[in-house]
Amino acid sequence: MQLSDRAMNIQASPIRKLMPFANKAKKDGVHIYHLNIGQPDIHTAPEMMSVFRNFDEVILTYGPSDGLPEYKTSLVEYYKMNNIAVKEKDIIVTTAGSEAIIFALMAVCNEGDEVIVPEPFYANYNGFATMAGVTIVPLTTHAEDGFELPSSEKIKELITERTRAIIICNPGNPTGAVYTEEQLLRLEKIAKDYSLYIISDEVYREYVYDGMKHKSVLTLSDFDDHAIMIDSISKRYSACGARIGCIVSRNEKLMSCVMRFAQTRLCPPTLEQLAANAAANLGEEYFKEIHAEWDKRRNIVFNELDKNEDIICVKPKGAFYVIAKLPIKDSDHFAQWLLEEYRHENETVMVAPCAGFYATPGLGKDEIRIAYALNEHDLRKGMHIFTSALAEYRKHFE
Amino acid sequence: MQLSDRAMNIQASPIRKLMPFANKAKKDGVHIYHLNIGQPDIHTAPEMMSVFRNFDEVILTYGPSDGLPEYKTSLVEYYKMNNIAVKEKDIIVTTAGSEAIIFALMAVCNEGDEVIVPEPFYANYNGFATMAGVTIVPLTTHAEDGFELPSSEKIKELITERTRAIIICNPGNPTGAVYTEEQLLRLEKIAKDYSLYIISDEVYREYVYDGMKHKSVLTLSDFDDHAIMIDSISKRYSACGARIGCIVSRNEKLMSCVMRFAQTRLCPPTLEQLAANAAANLGEEYFKEIHAEWDKRRNIVFNELDKNEDIICVKPKGAFYVIAKLPIKDSDHFAQWLLEEYRHENETVMVAPCAGFYATPGLGKDEIRIAYALNEHDLRKGMHIFTSALAEYRKHFE
Repeated sequence: MQLSDRAMNIQASPIRKLMPFANKAKKDGVHIYHLNIGQPDIHTAPEMMSVFRNFDEVILTYGPSDGLPEYKTSLVEYYKMNNIAVKEKDIIVTTAGSEAIIFALMAVCNEGDEVIVPEPFYANYNGFATMAGVTIVPLTTHAEDGFELPSSEKIKELITERTRAIIICNPGNPTGAVYTEEQLLRLEKIAKDYSLYIISDEVYREYVYDGMKHKSVLTLSDFDDHAIMIDSISKRYSACGARIGCIVSRNEKLMSCVMRFAQTRLCPPTLEQLAANAAANLGEEYFKEIHAEWDKRRNIVFNELDKNEDIICVKPKGAFYVIAKLPIKDSDHFAQWLLEEYRHENETVMVAPCAGFYATPGLGKDEIRIAYALNEHDLRKGMHIFTSALAEYRKHFE
Repeated sequence: MQLSDRAMNIQASPIRKLMPFANKAKKDGVHIYHLNIGQPDIHTAPEMMSVFRNFDEVILTYGPSDGLPEYKTSLVEYYKMNNIAVKEKDIIVTTAGSEAIIFALMAVCNEGDEVIVPEPFYANYNGFATMAGVTIVPLTTHAEDGFELPSSEKIKELITERTRAIIICNPGNPTGAVYTEEQLLRLEKIAKDYSLYIISDEVYREYVYDGMKHKSVLTLSDFDDHAIMIDSISKRYSACGARIGCIVSRNEKLMSCVMRFAQTRLCPPTLEQLAANAAANLGEEYFKEIHAEWDKRRNIVFNELDKNEDIICVKPKGAFYVIAKLPIKDSDHFAQWLLEEYRHENETVMVAPCAGFYATPGLGKDEIRIAYALNEHDLRKGMHIFTSALAEYRKHFE
């Protein structure tokens, strides 16, 4: 029986490939420090949990396709707190950020159209692009300068008559890069000059460090037709399992098309929207402590990496990831070796090799991504093991 | 700014078009009996609600992309109760039945491929097909014989070299038709002869009447490579807002591709899977009362329709819908007139015109779908108003 091309071609998750080796190690009683994952250990906002516990309806009904009205109103207020002025009609609630990306790609691209994406990028963009029949054209960025946005000339070189959009992840997974105002203004100019959309994935908005300010694509002026923002509560309230996100744009024609995609799948989860609604007004007070915790972890990881002068790593400015360029040839092999061979008092670490975050073949082979989603104690321990392991690995394989 | 062809072409929900007229009537203080909707008034299984209320984790985490293992094991048992023998590896949990359909279409069809669907069909299949770039080839069925599956000859006439699958909804929304074993065996033979998949949407499995037995596509012998089953708990436990479904197939190659689609969007809602898990072992005892309630409602609606010899309507065998062929020319106009003009003691009814359930232009213009999802009292009242309104309408417009 024949399967479709997209089914045969869709990229397997680059991290999940390592799972059998991790499972084997665990079965053998080895403790693994997970420096590979994006599941935070921060408690889910208690305001959300209370909603589940106090839910007293007798029927769990469908909600509207664009989201519960009261939640949309709360989102308008939430964005206002973040200096983003939008109205209810500019928002469609989605089943996590994932669905928002799929809707955005499907709305702006025909099969065979192209989107430019700075690489390394969130690996699942590959899957969404394959599902939507869209070609990702990578714009290579570099560890040496902290994965800064390249020059406008370099971006323009990639634009063809099939280019429809530029996708940015800001703050960036896996890079930790945060775009400056100057960089966003350059993107704005290119988008206007070439009639492109900017699809801006801003799910790590709250996690920007060193006093830097996050600037949303929705704050660019005279840019309403071009700007599409992707959002999610997964990282904001540590509610990854809730699957609540949204797509936000002031482009009315676009949103009326997205609404028809949304109607096709009826609605996002109802109870989770009620929970998200209860958390939507959490402000500075709530995020202060969590922000400080992430910042502390960022310092632990970066300082450990920075000690080794053979590692190239610029301090990340946002999200909770850092990419380290290592003095090794094959980080896939290194990551597998950590799980299969290396043991430090019967413990080891799991890291994400970066080749899967690049679309250009051959790139990222000497890079790994570390997610600093472990508590301070485990993170220190994990980083210590990582450093010892790297030294050991180099003795054997370089 | 350009939008994609699929965004421009995707069909707006045929029922939602009527919403502004319904809202206007409500604003004017008119009570509407909703004979149009599929949101049951049956209470959600209390076993699910208890899970929400007793949820005591501190983090709402991601689950596995294919679903929580304990829920998959419970599903295996649930299917066993329904004489369907599957293993955990044959099941991927999805965000409602909607996502299962999208995954199935994307896995078996390239852009431009065709699927045959008996019409009238669930209108959102149009949206899913547009999103997946798939062409729906309608196989017309008829009110006169209760929307029975047409002859094998008629089906084969529609098969081209681009045909990849036949989608059936069994029991059927909007028809209420339930396929006999003989009909399924005919589909099996065609699928084998022409290397087609059968994608069988079986979300109304529990609601089959008059002692008829539902037969799943997964019970056909020597058919593992062809059979794809779509399921959902929305109607089973009256949990439409939970958004939990699944795709089930013993075709391993297919399921490994679906798994990669599933990994791309990370996971379905976690807490709702825990809730669904608590309900999965509900058996005959639970469904007996609900089944009797639906059956009673079916009789109320059918008997009222059957009194009018100008209405063509065969008693539906399953689900909770019935299509009535009316002695009128334009059911879109009729449905709008009910909301805008007709008043019976300041009340009226809302029905779903059927043209949107057909892919063949012009068909269904004299048909409406009635969902019998109201309680007995409201249903009797609604049907009484409907009958009076139809007589009144015919005086004015026929």
